[in-house]
Amino acid sequence: MVGTSVAPTPLLKDELDIVIPTIRNLDFLEMWRPFFQPYHLIIVQDGDPSRVIKVPEGFDYELYNRNDINRILGPKASCISFKDSACRCFGYMVSKKKYIYTIDDDCFVAKDPSGKDINALEQHIKNLLCPATPFFFNTLYDPYRDGADFVRGYPFSLREGAPTAVSHGLWLNIPDYDAPTQLVKPRERNTRYVDAVLTIPKGTLFPMCGMNLAFDRELIGPAMYFGLMGDGQPIGRYDDMWAGWCTKVICDHLGLGVKTGLPYIWHSKASNPFVNLKKEYKGIYWQEELIPFFQSATLPKDCTTVQNCYIELSKQVKAKLGKVDEYFIKLADAMVTWIEAWDELNSTSDIPKGPAK
Amino acid sequence: MVGTSVAPTPLLKDELDIVIPTIRNLDFLEMWRPFFQPYHLIIVQDGDPSRVIKVPEGFDYELYNRNDINRILGPKASCISFKDSACRCFGYMVSKKKYIYTIDDDCFVAKDPSGKDINALEQHIKNLLCPATPFFFNTLYDPYRDGADFVRGYPFSLREGAPTAVSHGLWLNIPDYDAPTQLVKPRERNTRYVDAVLTIPKGTLFPMCGMNLAFDRELIGPAMYFGLMGDGQPIGRYDDMWAGWCTKVICDHLGLGVKTGLPYIWHSKASNPFVNLKKEYKGIYWQEELIPFFQSATLPKDCTTVQNCYIELSKQVKAKLGKVDEYFIKLADAMVTWIEAWDELNSTSDIPKGPAK
Repeated sequence: MVGTSVAPTPLLKDELDIVIPTIRNLDFLEMWRPFFQPYHLIIVQDGDPSRVIKVPEGFDYELYNRNDINRILGPKASCISFKDSACRCFGYMVSKKKYIYTIDDDCFVAKDPSGKDINALEQHIKNLLCPATPFFFNTLYDPYRDGADFVRGYPFSLREGAPTAVSHGLWLNIPDYDAPTQLVKPRERNTRYVDAVLTIPKGTLFPMCGMNLAFDRELIGPAMYFGLMGDGQPIGRYDDMWAGWCTKVICDHLGLGVKTGLPYIWHSKASNPFVNLKKEYKGIYWQEELIPFFQSATLPKDCTTVQNCYIELSKQVKAKLGKVDEYFIKLADAMVTWIEAWDELNSTSDIPKGPAK
Repeated sequence: MVGTSVAPTPLLKDELDIVIPTIRNLDFLEMWRPFFQPYHLIIVQDGDPSRVIKVPEGFDYELYNRNDINRILGPKASCISFKDSACRCFGYMVSKKKYIYTIDDDCFVAKDPSGKDINALEQHIKNLLCPATPFFFNTLYDPYRDGADFVRGYPFSLREGAPTAVSHGLWLNIPDYDAPTQLVKPRERNTRYVDAVLTIPKGTLFPMCGMNLAFDRELIGPAMYFGLMGDGQPIGRYDDMWAGWCTKVICDHLGLGVKTGLPYIWHSKASNPFVNLKKEYKGIYWQEELIPFFQSATLPKDCTTVQNCYIELSKQVKAKLGKVDEYFIKLADAMVTWIEAWDELNSTSDIPKGPAK
């Protein structure tokens, strides 16, 4: 149909929610308008619930503040962090869609090397809709991309791949560094556009950043808990890391794939490294024990749902990480609460929800 | 010293040999002259030993034909393949240098996206001289590259990395496909320049191609055996794959890193897919059993040298793959012969060697 000018229907228009945690007016959406406007937004307002968040006109959204979260979850609201972007996972829970894309409000549209605006959401959707290859590494990266394939020596029985549960996108400009690295390299900017999507192999952990992240809620949603961070907690800035480690262990157990690489967004502003250091320092210390824990974690064969896996993982967290700090006992309990709340909101029966009108 | 025009000494000039298996005149070296001329070449002539191979003037080389191999190794020459580029591993054995770069004679200098000639050897050397990160995935790829670092959530205790044993480079133009893929996609060309070097994580196997490959002989040399292929053997085109699987298992056991990605070379000519299919078909079938074998292979703790590891692996090959086909019994024996020959030529005592003058 050459010559027609009807815009194509955006991919997964009615099957994907965009989740945005924020404390400010969402002017950043203006730049994303060509790509996001067809989709539904779930805005999770952090901090003071009386503050009014302005959303640019023309966007279809629902907005939840702390009062909404408390009203909807009741006592189970304790599992949702406050004064930390970890609160975004509430949006995953109330979504009714199959796919989630989450993005921070200091992330803008990046350009590819040809100067073209990158439709990050479209690339994430492509990543999620085509299989992953967690069982064997393909040296030409994503074998399903145009112009690529499996190379010589790649077993044919593995070429169907595995369903993709997670698509982890990257960042140009301000890289996602921890506070010590920010302090040591205040001027470092990421300018390298690496034109690749690849599957993180089975058995390998990675640092999952929540800034530019998409996933299949039906496949892995209940594992995407961003933990207890921020107000009243001894730690911050490990919300997405925690979710990533839990998710990866469960994806590996269930035979699901996790991809990283394209798409890039433009990360505009480095957060304050001194504030970050205060939030992170216990995490930097604890992660030395967390990584070996997750690397050696195994789940029993009879854990065949994400919920079962997650509850089992929470038990192991309590038993093994409880010794590291009592925080992990609290976190393990919150993991259980999260699953209970998830199941409550996502059961087939008709539970009233939705933000106050 | 701005303004001086003294050319810098090429990296590792006296510590690296370039190994080239060939059956033809080495005109392809003309294009590589600016990059290869300072280095010593080891040419392994395959096929008819009476044929004279012309090497462009000005290159420093030694050349071994089949008669040389038979003379130097005696009965142990049986472990070196004939009429197959697997014979190249003889060059690894006779080298006295710490590093090896091996390249096929149908590989030319590629250009980076800016149009600049890529010095593939220099990039391999950089890859080998800086650490690898096999224990945890870094989402910004090689953290030691200019403008990159470890991202938030990367454990600090792992940031020293591991010694790099292998650097696996890629190919623009003709991709390294197996015969079935060549037949199905005869016109596919690799035009995607992915500006990344990454470590293949511990526990993950990959298809190692011998076309554009560098390694640290001292760290991993004795594992770089390219097996029994070609003349008198039921299989071809699995020489580098075999070496890659053995090498990766041993690197994982010894805590060594394997990198893939940059540099690219320009692969000029696709080999004949019909001929390839004849060479490969048993391999395509067998590899379905080889991959699970290598994925589950473990080496005992007291195997602390590459030789020990390799001999142990040969025993497992005989015990477990011997059932797949008697070829693997012969191959397991050849693996032992290879190590004996390697040790003979690489002992500290003075063993006469070198090609006939």
